[in-house]
Amino acid sequence: MTTPLRIGIAGLGTVGGGVFRLLRTHRELLQARTGRPFEIRGVSARSRRRERGLDLSGVEWFDDPLALARHPEIDVVCELIGGSEGIARELVTTALAHGKPVVTANKALLAHHGGELARLAEAHSVTIGWEAAVAGGIPVVKALREGLAGNRIRRVYGILNGTCNYILTQMRLTGRPFDQVLAEAQRLGYAEADPSFDVDGIDAAHKLALLAAAAYGLEPDFAAVHVEGIRHVTPLDIAFAEELGYRIKLLGVARLTEHGLEQRVHPAMVPHEAPIAQVEGVYNGVTVEGDFVGTTVYEGRGAGAGPTASAVVADLVDLARGVRLPVFGVPAEELRPPTPLPMSRHEGCYYIRLQVVDRPGVLAEIAAILRDHAISIEALIQRARNPGRGVPIVLTTHEAREGAMVTALDQIGALTSVLEPPRMIRIEPFADGDPAV
Amino acid sequence: MTTPLRIGIAGLGTVGGGVFRLLRTHRELLQARTGRPFEIRGVSARSRRRERGLDLSGVEWFDDPLALARHPEIDVVCELIGGSEGIARELVTTALAHGKPVVTANKALLAHHGGELARLAEAHSVTIGWEAAVAGGIPVVKALREGLAGNRIRRVYGILNGTCNYILTQMRLTGRPFDQVLAEAQRLGYAEADPSFDVDGIDAAHKLALLAAAAYGLEPDFAAVHVEGIRHVTPLDIAFAEELGYRIKLLGVARLTEHGLEQRVHPAMVPHEAPIAQVEGVYNGVTVEGDFVGTTVYEGRGAGAGPTASAVVADLVDLARGVRLPVFGVPAEELRPPTPLPMSRHEGCYYIRLQVVDRPGVLAEIAAILRDHAISIEALIQRARNPGRGVPIVLTTHEAREGAMVTALDQIGALTSVLEPPRMIRIEPFADGDPAV
Repeated sequence: MTTPLRIGIAGLGTVGGGVFRLLRTHRELLQARTGRPFEIRGVSARSRRRERGLDLSGVEWFDDPLALARHPEIDVVCELIGGSEGIARELVTTALAHGKPVVTANKALLAHHGGELARLAEAHSVTIGWEAAVAGGIPVVKALREGLAGNRIRRVYGILNGTCNYILTQMRLTGRPFDQVLAEAQRLGYAEADPSFDVDGIDAAHKLALLAAAAYGLEPDFAAVHVEGIRHVTPLDIAFAEELGYRIKLLGVARLTEHGLEQRVHPAMVPHEAPIAQVEGVYNGVTVEGDFVGTTVYEGRGAGAGPTASAVVADLVDLARGVRLPVFGVPAEELRPPTPLPMSRHEGCYYIRLQVVDRPGVLAEIAAILRDHAISIEALIQRARNPGRGVPIVLTTHEAREGAMVTALDQIGALTSVLEPPRMIRIEPFADGDPAV
Repeated sequence: MTTPLRIGIAGLGTVGGGVFRLLRTHRELLQARTGRPFEIRGVSARSRRRERGLDLSGVEWFDDPLALARHPEIDVVCELIGGSEGIARELVTTALAHGKPVVTANKALLAHHGGELARLAEAHSVTIGWEAAVAGGIPVVKALREGLAGNRIRRVYGILNGTCNYILTQMRLTGRPFDQVLAEAQRLGYAEADPSFDVDGIDAAHKLALLAAAAYGLEPDFAAVHVEGIRHVTPLDIAFAEELGYRIKLLGVARLTEHGLEQRVHPAMVPHEAPIAQVEGVYNGVTVEGDFVGTTVYEGRGAGAGPTASAVVADLVDLARGVRLPVFGVPAEELRPPTPLPMSRHEGCYYIRLQVVDRPGVLAEIAAILRDHAISIEALIQRARNPGRGVPIVLTTHEAREGAMVTALDQIGALTSVLEPPRMIRIEPFADGDPAV
């Protein structure tokens, strides 16, 4: 095949600009690797006049991105606009309906409408490439759909949001509270002016829903993801975690159990020696446990123009080579929405921090409540003394049911000797998964 | 496509047995993921009577593996025999010449004959899958040929031999010497009775030549790999490395420079905080630096039945889905042997350990020789005192040319005050590669 791959790029922001630059920089390399020239046939963005530092000569400008999606001389549409609704969704739908494959970095769109779009794509015998939607340049979607396709996936989990990981890393290194570190991250451009998409875990939850879909051949089910962000993590919790041998990360975890699909995003304590604990700053890391392969780990930059462009172009290379995979790893007619496992049925270990009045008998009250819910204490730290006043108590538990833990914490929080709402952070032991054979 | 993929497996040892078990265990999963049944049509191994714990009913037995390779009802041949010559090579050649794709875990075969076999494969419009040949179940070949195909690769390096990594890890943890730890590894089955393939770096060099080929679209050139094993690493060097903030790993490093392809396998000191330093025991880890993606890291089990079977089956899944990639990432007619960069032109930092007579002036002699070769000292440790007798001196250098270092060490070794041949270990700083954009 020496016919060119004619590409339309919709959106020329950070990611779109990066894709444009990569395609121009590596024109010869891409042709050598695929046997086909890559041609940027058209682009579309909100403002034609904005200075982007891109040489757009010889590239058709489309004021209307939908016209780009319909254009007969465009073979593939890169949707790099973003957002789960509106023009991005319309663009993708239009391109697919016109029999054009789509490559996108849009996690929100796929997390909300992935099943429907996968069916539309396959009805028109094309596919959607979305490597760039999860973990930036790390080819983890390819690992899940292809490289580990011979495995039943036991669990997939990871650090999926670089902003949160940067903030948590800085909080640990500097001992400063969330608000201060967030403000600094905003100054440095690592966090948005409105940071809630990142710090409240929504972005990570979008990505987790997509990873789960690829791992288990299911429709993405964003609505079923249990989501907690990092606003409540304090320097005190980080210090206690270090003392206990853990590091706090915003994790996304997906696991298909016999009772349903567990999907959760929340701050978690991971052991210092776990590979994922070493993933610091703006880096992302994903661990995939397969029954034959055992534990595999993937790390790299989770965002930015270069890494995201690398992933977008990887999907274009696949298309140029004639590779056409089902969007979520199984044919769309077999895609089903998952049965969600309610978070109350999650089983795991817990870190609990309480601010209590320092007087005899308080600990007995707390221990009795935990006992009544069949929760056993693994470790307890009560270091400071402040007779008659408030001191922190930290305890960790053996494996317990989340539902029982939530009820117990409600009761503990209602004790008159407990001065603040209890803080709870889940602990993930992440023992190495050995291969089955 | 609902026609079955009819598989022939040649070799039923650890890996072949693992592939057989995986295909049987995940029959439904593989069909769901590819839309095609996977059928084990035939097997071949040396002894039919050997007990392997495999249910071979319904599978045709071939005493002659070449008959399996020629059989018209076999669509793909898995070569899991091993060895760079003899029956494995004949089998692969026969299968390709009969227009059958081959999937293999055989790094020796491809490192020696990869270019020739790639051309034969493409002449018959088929391909060779070799994910299992490097780093076990970690899909790093897929990452290089596909997931990072939009990047110029700045460097690829990794821990490619689990036996060596296990030995080095154990030496560090126990302080015991190489011979003792090797003997223990042999008892535990982590090292072969004849360990030289592993501990002398040959196996890692095979894998490195293949990674370099995939990264740069070149013929594998095993003969040009500079190879040193781990027999000379001592507990003393490991202790000094820890003190200096480094961990000693057997590394394979490939880098295409303007003067040629650098390929080297040798013990190296890597900073504690580098992700690759955290890859311990039998695990493998590979780092790929691309100009757009920046640094990406891949970790997992590098050997064993399950992980290797996972990789073999990933290649079978690609074939079942109709994916057919050029063997080394570019069409075979464009494959060229690399221009090797001689090791003498390598530039890097060095750790040097000397056993010298403890008397004034010795250090001045050594420093003068280094100065004469334009090698500058970065740090020096001379801790013990033993006037008139032997004491160890350790020094590390700034970046220097290997050729100059080798000459300097020859001259230093010839000094009468230097009691043993100097020990040299290269230091790899591995600063994070930022993306280009």
